[in-house]
Amino acid sequence: MIFGSDNWAGAHPVIARRLLEESGGFSVPYGASELDRLVEQKFNDLFEREVAVFFVGTGTAANSLALAAVNRPGGVTFCHREAHLIEDECGAPEFFTHGARLAPVDGENGKIDPRHLIAEINRFPPGFVHSGQPMAISITQATEIGTLYGTDEIAAIANIAQQKQLPLHMDGARFANALVALNLSPAELTWKLGVDIISFGATKNGCWCAEALVFMRPEMARDLPFIRKRAAQLFSKTRFIACQFEAYLTDGLWLELARHANDMARCLQNGIRASKHARLAWPAGANEVFCIVDKERAEYLKQRGAIFYVWNPPHSKPELLGENEVLLRLVTSFATRRRQVDQFIEILG
Amino acid sequence: MIFGSDNWAGAHPVIARRLLEESGGFSVPYGASELDRLVEQKFNDLFEREVAVFFVGTGTAANSLALAAVNRPGGVTFCHREAHLIEDECGAPEFFTHGARLAPVDGENGKIDPRHLIAEINRFPPGFVHSGQPMAISITQATEIGTLYGTDEIAAIANIAQQKQLPLHMDGARFANALVALNLSPAELTWKLGVDIISFGATKNGCWCAEALVFMRPEMARDLPFIRKRAAQLFSKTRFIACQFEAYLTDGLWLELARHANDMARCLQNGIRASKHARLAWPAGANEVFCIVDKERAEYLKQRGAIFYVWNPPHSKPELLGENEVLLRLVTSFATRRRQVDQFIEILG
Amino acid sequence: MIFGSDNWAGAHPVIARRLLEESGGFSVPYGASELDRLVEQKFNDLFEREVAVFFVGTGTAANSLALAAVNRPGGVTFCHREAHLIEDECGAPEFFTHGARLAPVDGENGKIDPRHLIAEINRFPPGFVHSGQPMAISITQATEIGTLYGTDEIAAIANIAQQKQLPLHMDGARFANALVALNLSPAELTWKLGVDIISFGATKNGCWCAEALVFMRPEMARDLPFIRKRAAQLFSKTRFIACQFEAYLTDGLWLELARHANDMARCLQNGIRASKHARLAWPAGANEVFCIVDKERAEYLKQRGAIFYVWNPPHSKPELLGENEVLLRLVTSFATRRRQVDQFIEILG
Amino acid sequence: MIFGSDNWAGAHPVIARRLLEESGGFSVPYGASELDRLVEQKFNDLFEREVAVFFVGTGTAANSLALAAVNRPGGVTFCHREAHLIEDECGAPEFFTHGARLAPVDGENGKIDPRHLIAEINRFPPGFVHSGQPMAISITQATEIGTLYGTDEIAAIANIAQQKQLPLHMDGARFANALVALNLSPAELTWKLGVDIISFGATKNGCWCAEALVFMRPEMARDLPFIRKRAAQLFSKTRFIACQFEAYLTDGLWLELARHANDMARCLQNGIRASKHARLAWPAGANEVFCIVDKERAEYLKQRGAIFYVWNPPHSKPELLGENEVLLRLVTSFATRRRQVDQFIEILG
Repeated sequence: MIFGSDNWAGAHPVIARRLLEESGGFSVPYGASELDRLVEQKFNDLFEREVAVFFVGTGTAANSLALAAVNRPGGVTFCHREAHLIEDECGAPEFFTHGARLAPVDGENGKIDPRHLIAEINRFPPGFVHSGQPMAISITQATEIGTLYGTDEIAAIANIAQQKQLPLHMDGARFANALVALNLSPAELTWKLGVDIISFGATKNGCWCAEALVFMRPEMARDLPFIRKRAAQLFSKTRFIACQFEAYLTDGLWLELARHANDMARCLQNGIRASKHARLAWPAGANEVFCIVDKERAEYLKQRGAIFYVWNPPHSKPELLGENEVLLRLVTSFATRRRQVDQFIEILG
Repeated sequence: MIFGSDNWAGAHPVIARRLLEESGGFSVPYGASELDRLVEQKFNDLFEREVAVFFVGTGTAANSLALAAVNRPGGVTFCHREAHLIEDECGAPEFFTHGARLAPVDGENGKIDPRHLIAEINRFPPGFVHSGQPMAISITQATEIGTLYGTDEIAAIANIAQQKQLPLHMDGARFANALVALNLSPAELTWKLGVDIISFGATKNGCWCAEALVFMRPEMARDLPFIRKRAAQLFSKTRFIACQFEAYLTDGLWLELARHANDMARCLQNGIRASKHARLAWPAGANEVFCIVDKERAEYLKQRGAIFYVWNPPHSKPELLGENEVLLRLVTSFATRRRQVDQFIEILG
Repeated sequence: MIFGSDNWAGAHPVIARRLLEESGGFSVPYGASELDRLVEQKFNDLFEREVAVFFVGTGTAANSLALAAVNRPGGVTFCHREAHLIEDECGAPEFFTHGARLAPVDGENGKIDPRHLIAEINRFPPGFVHSGQPMAISITQATEIGTLYGTDEIAAIANIAQQKQLPLHMDGARFANALVALNLSPAELTWKLGVDIISFGATKNGCWCAEALVFMRPEMARDLPFIRKRAAQLFSKTRFIACQFEAYLTDGLWLELARHANDMARCLQNGIRASKHARLAWPAGANEVFCIVDKERAEYLKQRGAIFYVWNPPHSKPELLGENEVLLRLVTSFATRRRQVDQFIEILG
Repeated sequence: MIFGSDNWAGAHPVIARRLLEESGGFSVPYGASELDRLVEQKFNDLFEREVAVFFVGTGTAANSLALAAVNRPGGVTFCHREAHLIEDECGAPEFFTHGARLAPVDGENGKIDPRHLIAEINRFPPGFVHSGQPMAISITQATEIGTLYGTDEIAAIANIAQQKQLPLHMDGARFANALVALNLSPAELTWKLGVDIISFGATKNGCWCAEALVFMRPEMARDLPFIRKRAAQLFSKTRFIACQFEAYLTDGLWLELARHANDMARCLQNGIRASKHARLAWPAGANEVFCIVDKERAEYLKQRGAIFYVWNPPHSKPELLGENEVLLRLVTSFATRRRQVDQFIEILG
């Protein structure tokens, strides 16, 4: 009953076998092999346009280099107050941008509220050097608390980005889960709405290590080859990342895996809804379920072998918990088995 | 006949299979699993002392974070003029140290000359702020041109490091090749000689992606967990790096692979010595062979399918090449087959 | 009627003349002259202990280099939400610390609330790399909104700093104004309460350009000479900063100037209290007065030649302003004349 | 007999008095005053085109921010091996560019040799990420060893800059001395030859603290206001820098002062030529004279009160000194008196 995070899982068998196959032979290193080219082409197809793709080793690297690519002195990136970028990356985005700042923006349900966004951006009058200057907006899809931006919500933020001439970045660590939940194509959920750059995560969804930084307009990535190398993110044997993506993107495996994870989350959610000892904190959109139990029940679940994290309530919901209650985060993945879910629900009672 | 570099090879079958095995199940992410602990213990055993080990994704990361760990404002690291650190990492070491400088030191055979080292260090009088301050010495073993520091040579440099109170770093991208060539233990080739930090490379010798940054005195690495995370080098599914190291270090596989690569280099070297169309540039110490041929022969070798790089002559040997000659670098690896070597020698004529 | 800021003033005649006197002759550059030594000794006397003093050119430099001196990877500095550090320095503190973060802490009256401070620090569990690590606390005395920390309030924060083993920095851009208002000695307002580092500002109080970064424990400043030089803050003709401090600190000039500025603020405040068109936003502690008028009155004051800034209400007082009201900041300085104050009050009506 | 450096002098009386005059009254801070505008206009007139001017506090700041303005990831700036930038700024240029590298270029007489420059640039093949990418060329006029680039020599370097699409920066810490020596206008010695950016120094030539960073094409400086503020180089009371430049540039004072310094250097040089105990190391072009004496004579000069630095011979002249000889650097300034020169020559004998 492991719901700690989707990165507690290993690698999907298809991907693991593809890695094994790739282990023989010789290949041009540093991203220059035929396989690299082929997989880059796959991304063009996927996004229905010519994109610039860069493989990196971690989601933190993808996010940080995305911002490095659009960096400005005294720059400020606007993201949700609970974004991974600002909460869980040990200052990497600031480090890779030499101190550009992340400005937390409030919003319900883990999503940037456009009115707050405008208010925050307007705190930086053009040319007023003392406060610095806006440089980017970053949204997370699916969000850190498992909710989803609707297309209209992204369009509203993209509209602000365009008005303010700011690039719009999407942290897509769980992009596949969002795609499947919303039944949209990659193009429909990104550039057709105004997203300029995406951190395209595959590690959480069945790869062991495969993250791609994708620029919808290749000219924005002009210096990225140097930025990536200088960031120590150009792997010598890149074919091992490329081949994971190849397997991942072939025959819709990635969507299938995400669909499974989402389904498991839905089962969990249904079980929680039916439970007399737990209630949902909010509806799950993708593969993360947040529920509220009392402390004894949380302890009991742990003792029975369930693995999960106790989470802080969002800033926007300070009254979420009763006095003796805790918030649990339960994450499913491609590797979650139905019987684990059932067992959890049974123990939950 | 691929002698382009040792990173043109893939992963050794034992390591590839170990990766496959590891792909199932669940595990605590971010370096906190039992396997991580177990492999860290393996490093303690290997070095015959308690060391601090950090897995990272690339050799550039290992080198850069080693320097970040000992960083000083206005700091200067002394390395050989042809070190990978200074020649091939796109300024990553400077980036990760916020601008600390790399000072090239001359020396024959790809090795720092202690007299030049002292002279360079002495250009920075203690407390003289205008020039900056020494912060580290870095040597490469085996060197970028395939030669080896003898233990006495390392001891001489370590002695200077100690006198000047500078940490001594070893870029061990090809450490296994050096160990085997010199028939020494890891302890004998590092801390027993005065080496404080090693970039312990395994990628070039049979892993697909496994680099470890090892501090002989763990107190030097106090901030490394944060440095690594901030550098986007903390992988979520670290077990996939750990398991590579586990297979690599078990039953002497790593030494066996290095020995094979070195043997193949020796065969190449013998063939070149016997050739009437080529001469050795200098004796090979590990798994890199440098030879001199005329341009027509180089072209012919290429046409026949040999892959290698044409190299610039070292600064210390400006007169190395005759007018129509070029310098070839030939690198062998665990994956080099004897018949490839024989074929090359035959074509070389 | 210039109440724009205290840096709209020029230099006090005594300081200006001292600069003129210093202009002749020759002197060892880069902070090594006898005058530099003499003024450094003055700081020892002032603080009643041996301190380490570094002259720099701007308050932003002093603040930024203070943090650079105690920098940690993934570091987080806690300061008030409205601190100059975080609001008005274009990301310089982040830049000079390579991306260390500033965490805003709430609190009434421009002052860090110790309970919020503890809560914020506790968001960073020791050794939890994802969130980064605490590295310093910074308070501003007098605060950005002209209030003052009482000694007990500073002691409470210093107590937290000590428990958490964090250095405590004081942004003393208006330190003299605070000293005079509280009738304390420099030692009593700093290290005796637990302050480790102070940005000792003199520019706003009668110098044209004189800022000192003072470390109460010189060993904390070991690398500062290099940090300062690398930050382009080591002036060649440092004697021109030193001589300003010499005049400033001689015969209590600095306290006299601050006392005058505070007196002028008190007059302003009294006038506002008596006014039927304005009300005080909060009591002035030093040389900044914040008052509330309606927009027409603000416009009228401007037309009549008064210079001031319209300020945003503090986060802690969102309900401060009525619908048609604005908040004015009025800053006095050593150069403010009584008749300007009277004239302003008269116009205010 | 102070020939230590031109920054041992104080401020010229005209400039010192101008500072005194400016001390009264009030003025808009942070570079927004009328005086700032007026002096910026003076720079337009001086350079016979619209330029973008930024006042900063030190020459190191000017040089570092010039490079920050044209920064690229993995960037490399080519400068002479003995440039101030690379030898005397404690890594500030690297720091402000987040690790961009300075590549030393050889050349006789303190001047970049165009052939070496091309060779160095060609070490960075376009798009080859491992070595980084060229980002700027920097020359020093007058050079660190007191020589001068002829206009043809600058044109040759500018030609390379243009071919390689690299901005050309001039470190003009002693620009006035060069102008006077060559009898050229500022325009003739900069943009008419292809110089894009100049660090326009005035501190060494009679100001106490006045450095301007001048961009010949204002569009290159788009982000400079933020870069400067973030670098802690935006002074609040900028009028005190502006007024120094105003006095400096009025009625040709600056050229007069530089002419005097050069004249004094010429007198020194003539005296050395006539001396039987000294010989010139090379002809002085501006206000620095380098001469060779034996160690006893150097000691004797010191004992008699002469102040100078013993210099390292240039890399290009390793054979400059006889066994018992040392190289002296003698710098004159606006404040050097003829009788000091005569006295020195007399003692020199």
